[in-house]
Amino acid sequence: MDRIFNFSAGPAALPQAVLEQARDELVNWQGCGMSVMEMSHRGKEYMGIQAEAEADLRELMNIPANYKVLFLQGGASMQFAMVPMNLFRGKASADYLNTGEWSKKAIKEAQKYGKVNVVASSEDKNFTYAPAQSAWKLDPNAAYVHYTTNETIGGVEIFWTPETGNVPLVADMSSDILSRPIDVSKFGLIYAGAQKNIGPAGLTIVIVREDLLGQLVPGTPTMFDYKIAADNDSMYNTPSTYAIYIAGLVFKWLKKNGGIAAMEKVNRAKAKLIYDFLDQSKFFQSPVAVENRSLMNIPFTLKDAALDDEFLKAAKARGMVQLKGHRSVGGMRASIYNAMPIEGVQALVALMKEFEQQHG
Amino acid sequence: MDRIFNFSAGPAALPQAVLEQARDELVNWQGCGMSVMEMSHRGKEYMGIQAEAEADLRELMNIPANYKVLFLQGGASMQFAMVPMNLFRGKASADYLNTGEWSKKAIKEAQKYGKVNVVASSEDKNFTYAPAQSAWKLDPNAAYVHYTTNETIGGVEIFWTPETGNVPLVADMSSDILSRPIDVSKFGLIYAGAQKNIGPAGLTIVIVREDLLGQLVPGTPTMFDYKIAADNDSMYNTPSTYAIYIAGLVFKWLKKNGGIAAMEKVNRAKAKLIYDFLDQSKFFQSPVAVENRSLMNIPFTLKDAALDDEFLKAAKARGMVQLKGHRSVGGMRASIYNAMPIEGVQALVALMKEFEQQHG
Repeated sequence: MDRIFNFSAGPAALPQAVLEQARDELVNWQGCGMSVMEMSHRGKEYMGIQAEAEADLRELMNIPANYKVLFLQGGASMQFAMVPMNLFRGKASADYLNTGEWSKKAIKEAQKYGKVNVVASSEDKNFTYAPAQSAWKLDPNAAYVHYTTNETIGGVEIFWTPETGNVPLVADMSSDILSRPIDVSKFGLIYAGAQKNIGPAGLTIVIVREDLLGQLVPGTPTMFDYKIAADNDSMYNTPSTYAIYIAGLVFKWLKKNGGIAAMEKVNRAKAKLIYDFLDQSKFFQSPVAVENRSLMNIPFTLKDAALDDEFLKAAKARGMVQLKGHRSVGGMRASIYNAMPIEGVQALVALMKEFEQQHG
Repeated sequence: MDRIFNFSAGPAALPQAVLEQARDELVNWQGCGMSVMEMSHRGKEYMGIQAEAEADLRELMNIPANYKVLFLQGGASMQFAMVPMNLFRGKASADYLNTGEWSKKAIKEAQKYGKVNVVASSEDKNFTYAPAQSAWKLDPNAAYVHYTTNETIGGVEIFWTPETGNVPLVADMSSDILSRPIDVSKFGLIYAGAQKNIGPAGLTIVIVREDLLGQLVPGTPTMFDYKIAADNDSMYNTPSTYAIYIAGLVFKWLKKNGGIAAMEKVNRAKAKLIYDFLDQSKFFQSPVAVENRSLMNIPFTLKDAALDDEFLKAAKARGMVQLKGHRSVGGMRASIYNAMPIEGVQALVALMKEFEQQHG
């Protein structure tokens, strides 16, 4: 089979140009006689690759100089513990917004390390919306405020940035980082697993304001200390070198294609194709509140769930895979990150249209 | 430049056949229309890849059924905390052998989580040997006994397996796993960062006896719980999928080349070439006690350290790189893992011979 349209929520589709460059360079990187996978992380070739990846990410996201960029491992799930272990800093409690499965996991893990105040929750409506900030019960003495900008499973995205005054704002951006411009200076810490919009699984990016570093909950493992990672340029031990190299290629691809602002335009156009179709359909529907409809992960249901399998089969026959929704939500989910070409979205909408004509 | 001989201590050379297969499959794995990097870890393609990698590793190392194989992240440095957090199990102390830089790091980290009893140390002779077991002061009530089978920096390898009775034996095998047969059933837990003999950085393999799981030090992060990793087949969250795929290719390569016993023969032959030369040389010498000379990492010094740079330059001119010794030891270090062909070792010895003739 030729290249398919992969709607996986993560690990997810990567830009074809990035994969082709990785293939061409795999055995012998730029004529140096070895693969990037084989390079000592202390050698000048690899050090250059990592430094360039960081510089490109800083440029793409306009990251201020007083923020550290860390290349870590363990995914967002590891950050669920690292964030409280580093950021409680002796304070009595931390504030968390609860908008879905990933928020819940972050809350549960943070409770191991201190008191968690849930400022608002959308569990009352099965996580199909995000509470407005006016409904948040913020504590001005909280260690930090944590929220999930985009719930990958529920498809609920928050497009505005909460105002938290002097309390550091912490965001899990695993599934919408690099998809639209954000103002990094409004955040204390941003983290994201790579396997959606950045690169291969096994890499986690943390962007953290320097002044928040260095005060650990007792018993914090050395490898969990952001300051040690920062002081060692993410090389306290061997980083995920090959994943960082691929992420660097993705950053170059983003720059070449106009950066994050250009991505947002394409992402809005792609999502609009699907949401516009859903809004007029009598067969397919979106469970998510209009103002929180994710640009990255679009869950939708069929009028008759008994037809789910037939829809998935029809999609597969046309080279579209990984459309099955998460078991906690059911139905379908189309994840359309930066690397999903608009042709993939067009093919999906065309199928939905035909399927409705046949079964609606 | 064509393919070079890369003597890096890690990340290190990979088998050329593995790299070529990875290249050929990079964009489109076995005609499925996507890269392994893009596959959902819950999809049947990737699940098959990981299951096969585990089965091949079990076969290669003859891992008993009551041991779990875990594919984790964070390197050996993460294990320095995970081991005590999982294995102290309410006991008063753990026993550690100190044979070098990596042992020291493991000891320091374990001290965060309980009392550490150093059973013996070779620091008296700058970590150039390993104390015999008769010199170890073992505690029969220890939670476990930890040692480093091969000190990557010092080049000190322990070829015998300590007898610890009912106390679980824990080994950091990062730099000699898969280089020679071992009896897994004698160990409670084995861990190894992948970036020497297994595959790319960003993957850590843990082999642990089931009955040791499930008793955590309070405050242990969820991602540090071996039992959660085991119960979820290393998919509690997204694992390092691409690194696991490459490790799987390495395991296939090992099987095709006769398995671990065959590897040991080649490894002994390769190391013998260098040690035999060092033993008769009046210019180069090995600092390590004969019975602990590592088959994987061979540190050696020049009679005149002022010639170090010239030697490195001459090596580079012949396509041999990463021979500089670790700053804590000085001199040179040749890391000759499974993937280093004997031709690379022959080229190195030929250079040493000529260099001695010119400068000796």
